Amino acid sequence: MSVRAGSSLATAVAEYAADDARGEALGTCYRQVRDATRALAAPLSPEDCVVQSMPDASPVKWHLAHTTWFFETFLLESRLARFRPYHPAYRVLFNSYYQAVGPQHPRPQRGLLSRPGLDEVLAYREHVDRQVLDLLAGQRDDRREIAEIVELGLHHEQQHQELILTDVKHLLAANPLRPAYRPATPITPASTGVPQRWLRFEEGLREIGHPGPGFSFDNERPRHREYVGAFELASHPVTNGEYLTFIEKDGYARPEFWLAEGFGTVCERGWRAPLYWEQRDDAWYVMTLSGVRELVADEPVCHVSFYEAEAFARFSESRLPTEAEWEVAAADAPLDGNFVESGRLHPAPTSSRRHPPQQLFGDVWEWTGSAYRPYPGFAPLHGAFGEYNGKFMANQMVLRGGSCATPRSHIRATYRNFFYPPDRWQFSGIRLARDARS
Amino acid sequence: MSVRAGSSLATAVAEYAADDARGEALGTCYRQVRDATRALAAPLSPEDCVVQSMPDASPVKWHLAHTTWFFETFLLESRLARFRPYHPAYRVLFNSYYQAVGPQHPRPQRGLLSRPGLDEVLAYREHVDRQVLDLLAGQRDDRREIAEIVELGLHHEQQHQELILTDVKHLLAANPLRPAYRPATPITPASTGVPQRWLRFEEGLREIGHPGPGFSFDNERPRHREYVGAFELASHPVTNGEYLTFIEKDGYARPEFWLAEGFGTVCERGWRAPLYWEQRDDAWYVMTLSGVRELVADEPVCHVSFYEAEAFARFSESRLPTEAEWEVAAADAPLDGNFVESGRLHPAPTSSRRHPPQQLFGDVWEWTGSAYRPYPGFAPLHGAFGEYNGKFMANQMVLRGGSCATPRSHIRATYRNFFYPPDRWQFSGIRLARDARS
Amino acid sequence: MSVRAGSSLATAVAEYAADDARGEALGTCYRQVRDATRALAAPLSPEDCVVQSMPDASPVKWHLAHTTWFFETFLLESRLARFRPYHPAYRVLFNSYYQAVGPQHPRPQRGLLSRPGLDEVLAYREHVDRQVLDLLAGQRDDRREIAEIVELGLHHEQQHQELILTDVKHLLAANPLRPAYRPATPITPASTGVPQRWLRFEEGLREIGHPGPGFSFDNERPRHREYVGAFELASHPVTNGEYLTFIEKDGYARPEFWLAEGFGTVCERGWRAPLYWEQRDDAWYVMTLSGVRELVADEPVCHVSFYEAEAFARFSESRLPTEAEWEVAAADAPLDGNFVESGRLHPAPTSSRRHPPQQLFGDVWEWTGSAYRPYPGFAPLHGAFGEYNGKFMANQMVLRGGSCATPRSHIRATYRNFFYPPDRWQFSGIRLARDARS
Amino acid sequence: MSVRAGSSLATAVAEYAADDARGEALGTCYRQVRDATRALAAPLSPEDCVVQSMPDASPVKWHLAHTTWFFETFLLESRLARFRPYHPAYRVLFNSYYQAVGPQHPRPQRGLLSRPGLDEVLAYREHVDRQVLDLLAGQRDDRREIAEIVELGLHHEQQHQELILTDVKHLLAANPLRPAYRPATPITPASTGVPQRWLRFEEGLREIGHPGPGFSFDNERPRHREYVGAFELASHPVTNGEYLTFIEKDGYARPEFWLAEGFGTVCERGWRAPLYWEQRDDAWYVMTLSGVRELVADEPVCHVSFYEAEAFARFSESRLPTEAEWEVAAADAPLDGNFVESGRLHPAPTSSRRHPPQQLFGDVWEWTGSAYRPYPGFAPLHGAFGEYNGKFMANQMVLRGGSCATPRSHIRATYRNFFYPPDRWQFSGIRLARDARS
Repeated sequence: MSVRAGSSLATAVAEYAADDARGEALGTCYRQVRDATRALAAPLSPEDCVVQSMPDASPVKWHLAHTTWFFETFLLESRLARFRPYHPAYRVLFNSYYQAVGPQHPRPQRGLLSRPGLDEVLAYREHVDRQVLDLLAGQRDDRREIAEIVELGLHHEQQHQELILTDVKHLLAANPLRPAYRPATPITPASTGVPQRWLRFEEGLREIGHPGPGFSFDNERPRHREYVGAFELASHPVTNGEYLTFIEKDGYARPEFWLAEGFGTVCERGWRAPLYWEQRDDAWYVMTLSGVRELVADEPVCHVSFYEAEAFARFSESRLPTEAEWEVAAADAPLDGNFVESGRLHPAPTSSRRHPPQQLFGDVWEWTGSAYRPYPGFAPLHGAFGEYNGKFMANQMVLRGGSCATPRSHIRATYRNFFYPPDRWQFSGIRLARDARS
Repeated sequence: MSVRAGSSLATAVAEYAADDARGEALGTCYRQVRDATRALAAPLSPEDCVVQSMPDASPVKWHLAHTTWFFETFLLESRLARFRPYHPAYRVLFNSYYQAVGPQHPRPQRGLLSRPGLDEVLAYREHVDRQVLDLLAGQRDDRREIAEIVELGLHHEQQHQELILTDVKHLLAANPLRPAYRPATPITPASTGVPQRWLRFEEGLREIGHPGPGFSFDNERPRHREYVGAFELASHPVTNGEYLTFIEKDGYARPEFWLAEGFGTVCERGWRAPLYWEQRDDAWYVMTLSGVRELVADEPVCHVSFYEAEAFARFSESRLPTEAEWEVAAADAPLDGNFVESGRLHPAPTSSRRHPPQQLFGDVWEWTGSAYRPYPGFAPLHGAFGEYNGKFMANQMVLRGGSCATPRSHIRATYRNFFYPPDRWQFSGIRLARDARS
Repeated sequence: MSVRAGSSLATAVAEYAADDARGEALGTCYRQVRDATRALAAPLSPEDCVVQSMPDASPVKWHLAHTTWFFETFLLESRLARFRPYHPAYRVLFNSYYQAVGPQHPRPQRGLLSRPGLDEVLAYREHVDRQVLDLLAGQRDDRREIAEIVELGLHHEQQHQELILTDVKHLLAANPLRPAYRPATPITPASTGVPQRWLRFEEGLREIGHPGPGFSFDNERPRHREYVGAFELASHPVTNGEYLTFIEKDGYARPEFWLAEGFGTVCERGWRAPLYWEQRDDAWYVMTLSGVRELVADEPVCHVSFYEAEAFARFSESRLPTEAEWEVAAADAPLDGNFVESGRLHPAPTSSRRHPPQQLFGDVWEWTGSAYRPYPGFAPLHGAFGEYNGKFMANQMVLRGGSCATPRSHIRATYRNFFYPPDRWQFSGIRLARDARS
Repeated sequence: MSVRAGSSLATAVAEYAADDARGEALGTCYRQVRDATRALAAPLSPEDCVVQSMPDASPVKWHLAHTTWFFETFLLESRLARFRPYHPAYRVLFNSYYQAVGPQHPRPQRGLLSRPGLDEVLAYREHVDRQVLDLLAGQRDDRREIAEIVELGLHHEQQHQELILTDVKHLLAANPLRPAYRPATPITPASTGVPQRWLRFEEGLREIGHPGPGFSFDNERPRHREYVGAFELASHPVTNGEYLTFIEKDGYARPEFWLAEGFGTVCERGWRAPLYWEQRDDAWYVMTLSGVRELVADEPVCHVSFYEAEAFARFSESRLPTEAEWEVAAADAPLDGNFVESGRLHPAPTSSRRHPPQQLFGDVWEWTGSAYRPYPGFAPLHGAFGEYNGKFMANQMVLRGGSCATPRSHIRATYRNFFYPPDRWQFSGIRLARDARS
């Protein structure tokens, strides 16, 4: 059985907050999300779970512990009268960046923690889970507060589910043996090359941001007005085949396509192709979570930086959409696609059976041309939760739509993801836009 | 006599482009701007002009040569049938970042060029000036093209005039002797503490960007619609006195006010105050272009990074204005203030005699909360000129309004300046904004 | 039963090389050394074995694999007609620095290898061990060559045994939980402060270096004449108590005691005490392989760099011995002391029951004042073995005598160990010397 | 007129110390050395004198000031009852590394000091010179102390004379214009390829180090016994032609010739030839103090690091001499050669007219295989002078013999120069040695 859809969680949260009788449904949601995290670690050895392959990535074990720390610190500690920490050192070890909670073990040193071992971390998870479920099952008059924290904690956990996959992929790709995370699932027949089309959207004063009710992160709020001019959006993401043309036309060596810092990064790091691409005897291969295999031309290009996305767009005489444009286009799109639940763990070719715009959700996160800054009227959550999103609103760009590593119940049209322009280890791809011809 | 106002240049350009008889007016404008550059170097020794105090700054001599290279490369080389370069190596040495022109001497090595000497660079200037003035005086049927290049080149030159001052200030401040660039001009009596007020602006769909005709950089165009909610803007920039409160309340040590990267920068670089502030025996002093003197509480705070501006705003329970808000507020403001022509070369206290908002122009560049990205419909200029602005549209924030080092004729309400969030060596200050209470 | 003494190995090697009948004794030696390596990893989890705590240190798993690679590459590959590699990728993955063998997995990335897992590496060890033992048991006419490679490989393995301990100590000390490698063995009663004495050695033309026969590394050869003036040597290593005086007299802040680069290192890295010392509430604690415990004044100071050793010597108005002086003093000393076999894994106080000089062997490696350079007439071994020692003869200093982590059968009076002046993670200590008063 | 020979200075010092009447001779020596320094700066512009091309190099202006600071601080301040500093800030600005004197302006920031200007520094020199000459002319009862300081100061000044040339060469070579320091002097006809010969030296117990009386640095003392085995020394330094063979045989790409750190340095910095060599259209050119010219095969190779010297020696199946061997060979050699006074400022081919060993002195410093460590019994000078040499005795290698940039009166057979193994900007070359065949 798959993880319950976001709407189920929302329902369970609302019911729990409103009515004493339904702790069970929220408990079930809780258990499902937590189990899904643990299931992601199942194919991995303790050694796979401890190594940190770069400062930006975290060890899987750290993800397992930190998501637990989140519930322990923000739920148990704040709500249990007789709270006792599972281990006093964990408060620091597994604090990611919450200054309001206190000091943090330095991020680049997360990979030095051979202890606690994976089994100890799993025991920590079980201990906290038991306490959370007990709490949810009990009589409480702070059910609204509890519900909010559990809901945030579960969405937080889902973010780390995706990070577990991207961080493990980075680790395995750094190993010359190129080991697989798990065997490939049978691949659906490749598309026969569904052609790109331009879809037109008319100008207008739009409402952008999460309308409520239901869960959203603080950075999606408040819903506000934004004027959006007429534009056209590509019917589906840029494919490997299209991107190969850019490479073959020497795109990585032609500064005219690039932002200055983008070209600087290309030169400094010697980029010649997306991350995880390998050229052998004139053929292109790509590292996936199922090991290395030949590049498939019809699949969406993936693991490109914002710089590459911008350069490809300029090469294509178009541009990236703004996040408002993307949201306008996605507002009425059905929330389905190739998510983590498909088990594919890799973007899939466009299906001709769907109505365009295709693949807005799932497959690859789509870089937008918008810097990650607060919406007008933005107010961060109170206390430590205010550090969740707001303090990262500089130097990053917004991505939209989720990927093949995102849980289906986690994504929505208003969801704002954000990474640094040179980042490539996420499942990040490109959708083109252009000004509408009048 | 001061440099001619921007409108004079615009008139001269328009006349020259349209009508054979008026090369003289444009030549006069040309000569005035070029002379102003050279005058800025006059108080400096050859040694002052050769040193590069950090990779972000350039030697004054390099500025003198590069602005000349600009006219030689873009005007003489492209317009003169029998063009001969003044020195073949200069094409590379004094190319800043124009990939379309060819390779560039590496930026961090500009300070290694003890040769050509200052006198040789001044001779280079004279040579090119003579050729440009000859060109302007002659019969041409490409007057429109020439006019555009000259106009762009003179605005370019004015940008470097400001950089000469900020870069020299950085150099002199790095010298333990703290030498003065030139003696202080008599200071107008300090204000008696004009109080901050909040000025309200109503919501609406606004036109933002340069309307034309007249000169603007490509990044100010096209004029486009933007929805701007109701907001309030501070009547004048944050003062040293106000900023001192932030310091005294331990603002630099309290992460709750800071963007994560801002606080990281503070810790890493040991920031405790704005750049050029020095504390001795519990009193604060500040390095100016006239040497070190005591801090004046009523002057606008200056040489703060975007990070500090944001942190101060959060400390003050307000925020930075967006660039659209700033432009709405400035649209009708008179274009006067404390510019480079005042000779003060330092921000001045608010005068109670002016109508608020005060000091929108001049004194200090004001950090906005807007990332430097293209306007909807943005099209860079053709050819190498397209590299002037567009390729820097990542990771930087917009500043508005000009400073005490900006030529008066160079600034306008739609002008977009941009620097990196940690940059502090420009005359950059803070103006607060907040959402309007409904 | 402990590892056989070096003499036993030498005997077994000589017998095997000379006489067809004795492969068994050499096989027993081989098995004992190999088993000892594996036994060192026994207290560690797979996670402990995979992490690399700094570029200078290697993961335990890598040590286990590399020592196996050594026998596979240099013995099996070169001597077996039908050699087949255990895994083709291992040739690169576990090559440390032998350019003659081919490319190497980059040293700082050894810690990224979560695969092959510890169990796979142990299987690799077993596979190679089986083949080596079969080879030793079989009829061969290249017994002399085999004997030499096995002997070198076992001494090589013993070096890595020590590195396993020092590298694991570094890893565990980097963990805020400060876990123990294994419980402390009962400590023998502390000395009652055996006082330092100066032992006099007369001047003379000495023979330095390994005289043969028997095993030595190429860097100990040839034995050669060196003139050594009269000198005095301290009777035992500098103690923690003595070193504390240096700290308390502000030694780390007084440049007059330090080499310029030493003081630079102190300032840059913020050194205030030896590595693994921690001060809490005015008491000093020290991290050991059995966890953190209070500092014992009578134990030899340990984990100091050459810079600290030199500074302490200057503070003490003496100097470090040259390696020739050390060897002269050690020539007749009994080869016993606190080695890895004691299980203490930490230096021990001087015993008054021994004849001075005490503790020349075991406890702590003793920094000498001699740079690691070739002896007159030095000739590196042929082929890849020539890379074993010779190519490191720059920028390092010689240490002598072995430590509490050295196998007893591995050390001898002529043994030259070498590390960089700032290195501190080895069990490195200080013995003082001075010119003899005439 | 050239600078007086070292013996003249020694005589003047001895006379002054002994006898009231001869301050004049010492004053003349003083003036000559000081004038020679200033003459070296004469061909340079103020801009040439202020730039610092790398942290290891200093601006010429800084050398001019620091050598003056030396006399002001160590002579005037310590000997004049009514001493008043020329400028209080200079004590810090121009202190190189004397911790006993107090804080120092950071070395990598010497190039930021556009002020004081060159003319001010020259005025500082004149002021101090006047005071020193007055002091020498006056009645004193501390003549011995004064004599010693003046002697040390003048030898110190001569070291900086050489550094002025090497540092300026580095600066000019970093300029794409490759300007000349001064025009080439007419070059004596190239040698017709005097062949290398091996000169044999018998084994023996030798006296090494300065015997006194007369001036020497503390690091040359005490004279002490050292056993030196029989060896052979090349008759003259390795030539460009010989070194080219190493390059053409792919020496820079073959790790078997290199120390591990040497090969690492080669790869990291992309070395393919000595510093200042440039290849254009298959011909080799070399930057000299007279600009770029074609490589002359018979000139000694120059501007190689210790790593390159070692690798070339291994390629040549020989080795570098130890410093004791070098000193044995040089003990009876005439102290003449191509020094700074020749005006050539570049190494010259071997002359067949001289008796081998040729070119031990002058032309190029010769890397030895000896690490720079204290001689047995070494005692640094007292006070701040003790920092002159002793604190640098780590990580550096000894060079011997002086170069074409060394004043003739500055060098002697016992002179120990020292640089880091990767350093190449000195006039450093190679002389080969090998063990004598018995």
